[in-house]
Amino acid sequence: MADMIRAGLVGITGYTGMELARLLAMHPRMRLVEACSRAEAGRRLGDFYPFLEKLPGADVCISEFHAQRMAAACDVVFLAVPHGTAMEMAADLIAAGTRVVDLSADFRLRDAQVYEQWYVPHTRQSLLPQAVYGLPELYADQAARSRLVANPGCYPSSAILGLYAALKHDLIQTDGIVVDSKSGTTGAGRKATVSSLYCEVADTFRAYGLAKHRHTPEIEQEVSLLAGREVHVSFNPHLVPMNRGILSTIYTMLKNPATTLDDVHAAYSRTWAGSRWIRVLPKGKLPETRFVRGTMFCDLGLAVDPRTGRLIIVAAIDNLCRGASGQAIANANLMCGLPVETGLELAPLMP
Amino acid sequence: MADMIRAGLVGITGYTGMELARLLAMHPRMRLVEACSRAEAGRRLGDFYPFLEKLPGADVCISEFHAQRMAAACDVVFLAVPHGTAMEMAADLIAAGTRVVDLSADFRLRDAQVYEQWYVPHTRQSLLPQAVYGLPELYADQAARSRLVANPGCYPSSAILGLYAALKHDLIQTDGIVVDSKSGTTGAGRKATVSSLYCEVADTFRAYGLAKHRHTPEIEQEVSLLAGREVHVSFNPHLVPMNRGILSTIYTMLKNPATTLDDVHAAYSRTWAGSRWIRVLPKGKLPETRFVRGTMFCDLGLAVDPRTGRLIIVAAIDNLCRGASGQAIANANLMCGLPVETGLELAPLMP
Amino acid sequence: MADMIRAGLVGITGYTGMELARLLAMHPRMRLVEACSRAEAGRRLGDFYPFLEKLPGADVCISEFHAQRMAAACDVVFLAVPHGTAMEMAADLIAAGTRVVDLSADFRLRDAQVYEQWYVPHTRQSLLPQAVYGLPELYADQAARSRLVANPGCYPSSAILGLYAALKHDLIQTDGIVVDSKSGTTGAGRKATVSSLYCEVADTFRAYGLAKHRHTPEIEQEVSLLAGREVHVSFNPHLVPMNRGILSTIYTMLKNPATTLDDVHAAYSRTWAGSRWIRVLPKGKLPETRFVRGTMFCDLGLAVDPRTGRLIIVAAIDNLCRGASGQAIANANLMCGLPVETGLELAPLMP
Amino acid sequence: MADMIRAGLVGITGYTGMELARLLAMHPRMRLVEACSRAEAGRRLGDFYPFLEKLPGADVCISEFHAQRMAAACDVVFLAVPHGTAMEMAADLIAAGTRVVDLSADFRLRDAQVYEQWYVPHTRQSLLPQAVYGLPELYADQAARSRLVANPGCYPSSAILGLYAALKHDLIQTDGIVVDSKSGTTGAGRKATVSSLYCEVADTFRAYGLAKHRHTPEIEQEVSLLAGREVHVSFNPHLVPMNRGILSTIYTMLKNPATTLDDVHAAYSRTWAGSRWIRVLPKGKLPETRFVRGTMFCDLGLAVDPRTGRLIIVAAIDNLCRGASGQAIANANLMCGLPVETGLELAPLMP
Repeated sequence: MADMIRAGLVGITGYTGMELARLLAMHPRMRLVEACSRAEAGRRLGDFYPFLEKLPGADVCISEFHAQRMAAACDVVFLAVPHGTAMEMAADLIAAGTRVVDLSADFRLRDAQVYEQWYVPHTRQSLLPQAVYGLPELYADQAARSRLVANPGCYPSSAILGLYAALKHDLIQTDGIVVDSKSGTTGAGRKATVSSLYCEVADTFRAYGLAKHRHTPEIEQEVSLLAGREVHVSFNPHLVPMNRGILSTIYTMLKNPATTLDDVHAAYSRTWAGSRWIRVLPKGKLPETRFVRGTMFCDLGLAVDPRTGRLIIVAAIDNLCRGASGQAIANANLMCGLPVETGLELAPLMP
Repeated sequence: MADMIRAGLVGITGYTGMELARLLAMHPRMRLVEACSRAEAGRRLGDFYPFLEKLPGADVCISEFHAQRMAAACDVVFLAVPHGTAMEMAADLIAAGTRVVDLSADFRLRDAQVYEQWYVPHTRQSLLPQAVYGLPELYADQAARSRLVANPGCYPSSAILGLYAALKHDLIQTDGIVVDSKSGTTGAGRKATVSSLYCEVADTFRAYGLAKHRHTPEIEQEVSLLAGREVHVSFNPHLVPMNRGILSTIYTMLKNPATTLDDVHAAYSRTWAGSRWIRVLPKGKLPETRFVRGTMFCDLGLAVDPRTGRLIIVAAIDNLCRGASGQAIANANLMCGLPVETGLELAPLMP
Repeated sequence: MADMIRAGLVGITGYTGMELARLLAMHPRMRLVEACSRAEAGRRLGDFYPFLEKLPGADVCISEFHAQRMAAACDVVFLAVPHGTAMEMAADLIAAGTRVVDLSADFRLRDAQVYEQWYVPHTRQSLLPQAVYGLPELYADQAARSRLVANPGCYPSSAILGLYAALKHDLIQTDGIVVDSKSGTTGAGRKATVSSLYCEVADTFRAYGLAKHRHTPEIEQEVSLLAGREVHVSFNPHLVPMNRGILSTIYTMLKNPATTLDDVHAAYSRTWAGSRWIRVLPKGKLPETRFVRGTMFCDLGLAVDPRTGRLIIVAAIDNLCRGASGQAIANANLMCGLPVETGLELAPLMP
Repeated sequence: MADMIRAGLVGITGYTGMELARLLAMHPRMRLVEACSRAEAGRRLGDFYPFLEKLPGADVCISEFHAQRMAAACDVVFLAVPHGTAMEMAADLIAAGTRVVDLSADFRLRDAQVYEQWYVPHTRQSLLPQAVYGLPELYADQAARSRLVANPGCYPSSAILGLYAALKHDLIQTDGIVVDSKSGTTGAGRKATVSSLYCEVADTFRAYGLAKHRHTPEIEQEVSLLAGREVHVSFNPHLVPMNRGILSTIYTMLKNPATTLDDVHAAYSRTWAGSRWIRVLPKGKLPETRFVRGTMFCDLGLAVDPRTGRLIIVAAIDNLCRGASGQAIANANLMCGLPVETGLELAPLMP
């Protein structure tokens, strides 16, 4: 334990907290030493999560959150709590001297006005300038120097990684982008609601939040930065009867209608050639969420439709691992001086 | 049995044949009297499909196809066989004097050249002029006078019904329409292939056939007719880990950016007010495939995104019932002089 | 509507209430005219259950329960409310002059002491003698003459129908019977609880309530009556990641170890030869829950293991239809003078 | 790579081959260096299994099996091929000087006559005496000294581990044991058959192979050894609509009816106190397959039914990992001098 990074986790009852506990149990250089939950304080973590028994972390005693104590005990703290709550905890933890990876939306939007338009009033705006948007492919260096990382949303992770190379290579028009996303049901959270019951989700499919989901401004912020101009995106999520995974089908108009699949595939392959986790599939192959299950991989498939002048990009990630808790650990690795992939060299569970 | 319409079914081993057997078992005015399958000839239908035991149709003996015999024994014959095979059988059956509802693609496309571009050479082009595209909301009168109905594809049924009112009321631009469709796995057929195994489909999600699915020209044919000009559509299917259902999310640009959800909803409600099976959901509600499971309903949800000037239409159907076998029975009802809804007044299985 | 039986339904938010609404929407002789729910009073039923739109029953206005009004408006009332609540409502409704089918456990156990041992104090014991245990294969005549039918539990329906012929023909020992049952998740009800969330049930399997489930005394009561002596049964339920269906694997010891599968199959076939809904599968075939989905069928499969002297009986039903609401309608049919199968001649949804 | 154990894999297209590739990709001391498949020879493993891309093993070129070459290149070879084929390959590989973990049934049964009664003629009986039944909790020492390990079947792994402590402590009668097992669908293999299609398995449940499954003699062999007398077991498998996992509900009669749950729980806890992978759940808790997903854990739950004098044991494992490929790696670890848990310290994927 001597050379172990000490990690704290606030919020254990949701799926992102559960996934953090799972990933930390396999991390060779980081250990869960504190776990907070108001509802479950006093219980042993292994009693609350029997799947953790006989694994590192099972013996941690769940406590109520106390910023000073957490900061003293932990080199880094993961916040897996609702937005609004997170901003206060993050501020207190940083003031108390520790590092914070915030899995909520509180520090993702650089513009507090945009945040307040989609969420709630922001009471800790002074922290926004030091927060880093923690998508490692874009901001690893900044994260390594930061004490506050805003962990990206699950949908935006897929959309931004999907669009990145097309924007970098100036292949597409920035008007008229449509992101049609499909998410596994862990994305709906672990609250007890009738609409998330097994029998309300199994063997059915639905859209929700069309044209008004809160991940829209987050996608637009990063896509605009990549494009160098303000971009509006139509983002529309759907619910899939599966546990994990997001597949985003991204519709764009080619700038030059003569661009071929070969052109686009070459640009994507070049961009991501050295990447650890972005896998550009061979021409003609399309991603499936199971191929990334439980991992940090983001699989990208490409199709060009000359009939309509479109480039269609398909991006698949695991919403809990790459889209939340695994990415949070990657950020914590960076913040604590570990190689970004430490504890995340995982093979997908197939099937 | 005296006043019963006598139905024949060619092709029983696939899901559309199975669904026809199921629906005919509950039909008060039509009886399955002949069932053909080369592979299963000689077996009792109830032995092949134990779920049919003690229901009408179970005692039918499966036979090999013989056009003269079928025509003599049946008032109407359903063809649930692959394209290419169907065109020959249809021609022989009609020549022998019976009516045909063809569930394959062979007579859906009015232009034989377009058919041959996406499928195979068409050897019975002389029949094309008399074939009716059997979407009852559009062509019920023609179907009632015809002896050959081309039963629409599953995806096109959802897309055309979804777009119909917007086109009729001239609300949208006909350029740039994207149909992002998600289908249950019965849509992949009942052939034994590794890619359709339970463990290859469960708990995962994938796109397939982007920008090149054979239902594209069928959608374009009908949308162009509705629009009064040639329309190209980007149609892109996905596979959902569920048995039945199609949900199509249709992205369109409003002609007039000032059009509101109220405007669109009023237009849709007016168009479908008297419809038996098209249900326009209240504003703010979106369809789910389970709400139409096992029925002829087509549920429509609407969203207007003023930020991007889009109308998003969501259409949900049961791919096997409305998208294939139920619609085939509706067409047979019309052809045989029965009310279109006979035997199809079904409540969705929930859940 | 003139010759329609008028049905009332108390409790609409659960899966049995939902299934009653579904089945009544297809019933040719019975109409839902009253629907009660405290939580949803004042709403139109079709607004609460969008799947019901454009079907009979959609326009019923949900009201609070009032016994006199219900009795005046309804020929028969279905109680889909929790045990304890049901006994009071049933008493009031019968006093007010209508018929009652109670889907709760309140009148299933003839012995009030046994009821109170497994449930709660019984405050309406005086009604017990007139309550009929509504398993149509056993008690159709009594139900037809009764004004209070106790609708059987889902698990007991499968277990009793499975064991019936073996007991009648004296083929098995009455000691040591084990009923290992597996139920779809609608059996867990429609309450919002974390343990019934999609992501807590999908892709997993679990046992629950081993050796202490409340359906045990109900099975034992009926099996003892059939055996003519007191029988103890080990009943053990499991939860399956599927919506509907119960499959019970019933382990028994043959009385005579020389009994063959032929003997047992002949006895079962003879017993159920004229039955509308009990289907004894051919030797070597075993039931699957999908073959009975959405129907009243009970499929029975048989295996004899000469190595261990056992007869293994497998019984499959739809827990919501045969195991609850469909059976309730069969009982209501009997009570109201209709043929038992009216509105229940349904083909299973496949797949 | 210098200190890496070199592993070969024969048979990659099935689920156990796939799982071996997955687990080896995460193994810190063992590398896949050879992969054989007649059907896929010549392809890169990462092209065949896109989920493996950018992971160790992806660059292995699939070849046809050649015993001498495999033996020269590999310290240990996993056979994931059908029974009958495996026995020949194993013999050739051992003769050529390497170690073999055989995942087929060919060397599991010590008595060749029993093998031939349930399977096919055994052409390599001379190897049987040196084969070790590779259940690490029972035979780790023998495996460590052996060059041929017969990897246990999935169902037997759960049944034997479930019964072990009860037999060791002489708590139960050895007559009348019933093992009612439920397996995820990977257990049905990856062959293309209609009965394993998604739409034939989803939302349904069935029994199969009652009283005649080939895992019966394997369970009986080991249980008899533990009991010190010949034991017959009634073993009956079922198919669950989930990918992975086996849950076995084991019905036994207590030797002493006065034995309490406390007694049994104490005996089990004592037996497995030091075990790495056997987790005895707290009294009142029952296993779920998801809690062991993707891991070597075997979770045990206990219930005592004083009404019927029974001890009911519930055992849950992952059929692919503990029930096949993970256990194979544990055996390979032992054979190659590594700690048994190397590469298998995995946290379950939740959910």
